[in-house]
Amino acid sequence: MSERLWELEPTPAEMRALVDAAMRRIVSHVASLPDQPAGDLDAAEAETAALALRAPMPEEGRPLEDLLDVVFDRAAPRSWNAAGPGYLAYIPGGGIFESAVADLIADSLNRYTGVSAAAPCLCQLEANVIRWFCDIVGYGEGAYGFLTTGGSLANFSAVVAARHEKLRDEGLARGTVYVSDQIHHSVEKAAHLAGIPRANVRRIPSDAGFRIRLDAVRDAVARDRAAGLSPFLLVGSAGTVNTGAVDDLAALADIARDTGLWLHVDGAYGGFFTLTPRGRRAMAGIERADSVSLDPHKGLFLPYGTGCLLAKDGHALARSHGYWADYLPQQSDTLERMDVSRLSPELTRAFRGLRVWLPFMLHVVGAWRRALDEKLDLARVAAEGLRAIEHVRVVAEPQLSVVPFRLEPPGVTGAARDEMNRDLLRRIVARGRVWISGTNLPPPGTGAEGGRPEGWVLRFCVLSFRTHADRIEAALEDVRAAAAALL
Amino acid sequence: MSERLWELEPTPAEMRALVDAAMRRIVSHVASLPDQPAGDLDAAEAETAALALRAPMPEEGRPLEDLLDVVFDRAAPRSWNAAGPGYLAYIPGGGIFESAVADLIADSLNRYTGVSAAAPCLCQLEANVIRWFCDIVGYGEGAYGFLTTGGSLANFSAVVAARHEKLRDEGLARGTVYVSDQIHHSVEKAAHLAGIPRANVRRIPSDAGFRIRLDAVRDAVARDRAAGLSPFLLVGSAGTVNTGAVDDLAALADIARDTGLWLHVDGAYGGFFTLTPRGRRAMAGIERADSVSLDPHKGLFLPYGTGCLLAKDGHALARSHGYWADYLPQQSDTLERMDVSRLSPELTRAFRGLRVWLPFMLHVVGAWRRALDEKLDLARVAAEGLRAIEHVRVVAEPQLSVVPFRLEPPGVTGAARDEMNRDLLRRIVARGRVWISGTNLPPPGTGAEGGRPEGWVLRFCVLSFRTHADRIEAALEDVRAAAAALL
Repeated sequence: MSERLWELEPTPAEMRALVDAAMRRIVSHVASLPDQPAGDLDAAEAETAALALRAPMPEEGRPLEDLLDVVFDRAAPRSWNAAGPGYLAYIPGGGIFESAVADLIADSLNRYTGVSAAAPCLCQLEANVIRWFCDIVGYGEGAYGFLTTGGSLANFSAVVAARHEKLRDEGLARGTVYVSDQIHHSVEKAAHLAGIPRANVRRIPSDAGFRIRLDAVRDAVARDRAAGLSPFLLVGSAGTVNTGAVDDLAALADIARDTGLWLHVDGAYGGFFTLTPRGRRAMAGIERADSVSLDPHKGLFLPYGTGCLLAKDGHALARSHGYWADYLPQQSDTLERMDVSRLSPELTRAFRGLRVWLPFMLHVVGAWRRALDEKLDLARVAAEGLRAIEHVRVVAEPQLSVVPFRLEPPGVTGAARDEMNRDLLRRIVARGRVWISGTNLPPPGTGAEGGRPEGWVLRFCVLSFRTHADRIEAALEDVRAAAAALL
Repeated sequence: MSERLWELEPTPAEMRALVDAAMRRIVSHVASLPDQPAGDLDAAEAETAALALRAPMPEEGRPLEDLLDVVFDRAAPRSWNAAGPGYLAYIPGGGIFESAVADLIADSLNRYTGVSAAAPCLCQLEANVIRWFCDIVGYGEGAYGFLTTGGSLANFSAVVAARHEKLRDEGLARGTVYVSDQIHHSVEKAAHLAGIPRANVRRIPSDAGFRIRLDAVRDAVARDRAAGLSPFLLVGSAGTVNTGAVDDLAALADIARDTGLWLHVDGAYGGFFTLTPRGRRAMAGIERADSVSLDPHKGLFLPYGTGCLLAKDGHALARSHGYWADYLPQQSDTLERMDVSRLSPELTRAFRGLRVWLPFMLHVVGAWRRALDEKLDLARVAAEGLRAIEHVRVVAEPQLSVVPFRLEPPGVTGAARDEMNRDLLRRIVARGRVWISGTNLPPPGTGAEGGRPEGWVLRFCVLSFRTHADRIEAALEDVRAAAAALL
């Protein structure tokens, strides 16, 4: 038997030593975030390093410091710095430290929060969080929801709720779903997971502003209904990944009302901008949606692992997700005392509420309002700065905090332009100060989207609470230098 | 604007102060676990206390110590002590502290592990964990899997994989699933979430040992097939909640092979007992299943929030769960380098691997082998002790670490006996040293299950790493005293 360094139950002194050792690394790691490379890995080197970490089930314990070396010195530096200020790619991550401490507490307590009877007061703290989120999107009293691990499972449960309320089990093969060609792919994946045939998801073209075309939605629903299909779910975006576009949510709510469809709004990226006046305006009508996905690990800057689904009629979640067994305790029918396992796909789960509750109680919501307003400002600064660079085109005005752009020198089009912009991206990120990503914009159709740019574009997405004006300035400098070198 | 106590980015000194304050509470909380009441809440008082915690979105920040008071003094004590040694109810929780520290680290790093390219080395550490789990259940090289938040989502993805491999989207309405009447309800819920009509889940009667009846499975599949339905999924239990029964997994594998069904084994409670020789014997054949659910937050004593799904053919998970979008990076087709988002329903997610990896690397697997063996021993001690109490019947021999029992004094039957046993439970838990739960055993059918007990029974489930012989002795004393008081 190998000698163990720690027992399964450490002593108080061992607990403190463990945390102290971790904190030495964490504190210096967080302090160094602004100076860490933003994400331009040598992919081949990183792969080799990863493969070198392959290891069979350990036969001998290793000293804690060795293990922390692996994590902090070998593994973490070889990753995109999703927690750092220079991360403008995809949707940036957060990582507010109070949430990390909340997880330390929740894990150590390890109380059972899947059913309310097991920990009524802890469950109430989580219920408070859900109620605050309902307030944030403008939902009224009958609304409720639950915390997920992220947007994908939130979108999944929205499909399940819509399916149950509008379609019932029997008709899945005929059920049809309407999304824009700019929708996050997790919505289509959610429909697939929930048993909707892939062929039944209608990708509606988006307009010149990359918003779902309302006329095309109405047409598609009517056409499917005439063909004997069962349209049941319409999904709008409160901030697309590609361009940050916000669909006309009020108009979608009208369509959903007129056609009897469930309206779900994917606000994973953009939903929490409703905390700001500009975001509120952009998302007018969100409070009329039947359900809304939010991602606290995006818009509230939490560490990865917390999404949220809200429903205007909270009981719809219980109707579609509730199951009971003889070995479970009695359940409450009051929304805020309801078992989260009855509302959601999970039974046993982490006490997710604390990682939202603790920072909210310490900082107060104003801290997020200000930070999110700053992100909207920074996106506008970025758009202005990009426009000032010769031959750079901002291909869509920032509706929230995504700024898509590309180099469009005269005479360079199509594949050559795409290749030039891929090169531009490589040069920008090689500097190590920002990490950005590109995406492909679909060809415009024959309708209202005429004149819209298509093809490969770069984008800034400003969402880290650690990104401030200095980093946007640096990003613009790097674009300027890379563009100059290319032309 | 209210005065903030902490900025969204605390200084190093503030970070340390926050953790120190939390650790003062955590250390004394963990030290006091054995002396804390096991779970007999005054439900009405706890509800009142919970409702008193309802609070609107905070307008003013509160001192950290006030918030820790709420969590540790007001909320946590009013909960079932799922982390304590006296928790023998449902399936006990764990809460090894090294995992809590791993979460603190993972949250603070906040790297993106949904796609491998974003953090290849961190993803490799998680891939190591998956490979170890494959080894533990006896899977070979082509097997792979992913970490979930718990057993429910593991079972869900097993249904999705089975549906995709055996049934395809089109035939959901005709797809049928076979489970025993002792299956965990999350399997039926999983089928529902995946779009299988509720009426298509066949509850096969269990035998005298509460194992699924093999003859009845074969009959049901043949009957459904003859009726034009599409049997596609057979689910076995590696440890039921009610009695800890382990289905004859080798025989189920034979049936699955003969009938072309996908065999999923729900090992959320029992799967990690394969680390022990006795568990290995009880679960012979598990390595022939197409997929297996495991719950590290049960059998490995982790804090809540970590389950696992393994598949014998890892690529089956990618085929059923993989989706791609233009804004995502390139994907690897090698199992251990594959994006977890391609294998699973989630995209952005917490870096779950570290909470398994760190304790495994520190303690080495032998620590769990010994601890799980101890649980099996304790269950046998409990069964012996219960049998020695007058009029107590152990209603099913412990196959793993669940011991179902009840008081059966002469002449007391049916509803009166159920009521007496509910009273027995109340008296046992009122002492505060153990927290146990009861369940309802189904009436025996007309076949091989003849003579099996039915009705309401109590049960011990021994699974906490903090439960040792002294607590089982205390539990037996409390049963003895309560039974004596009742008779």
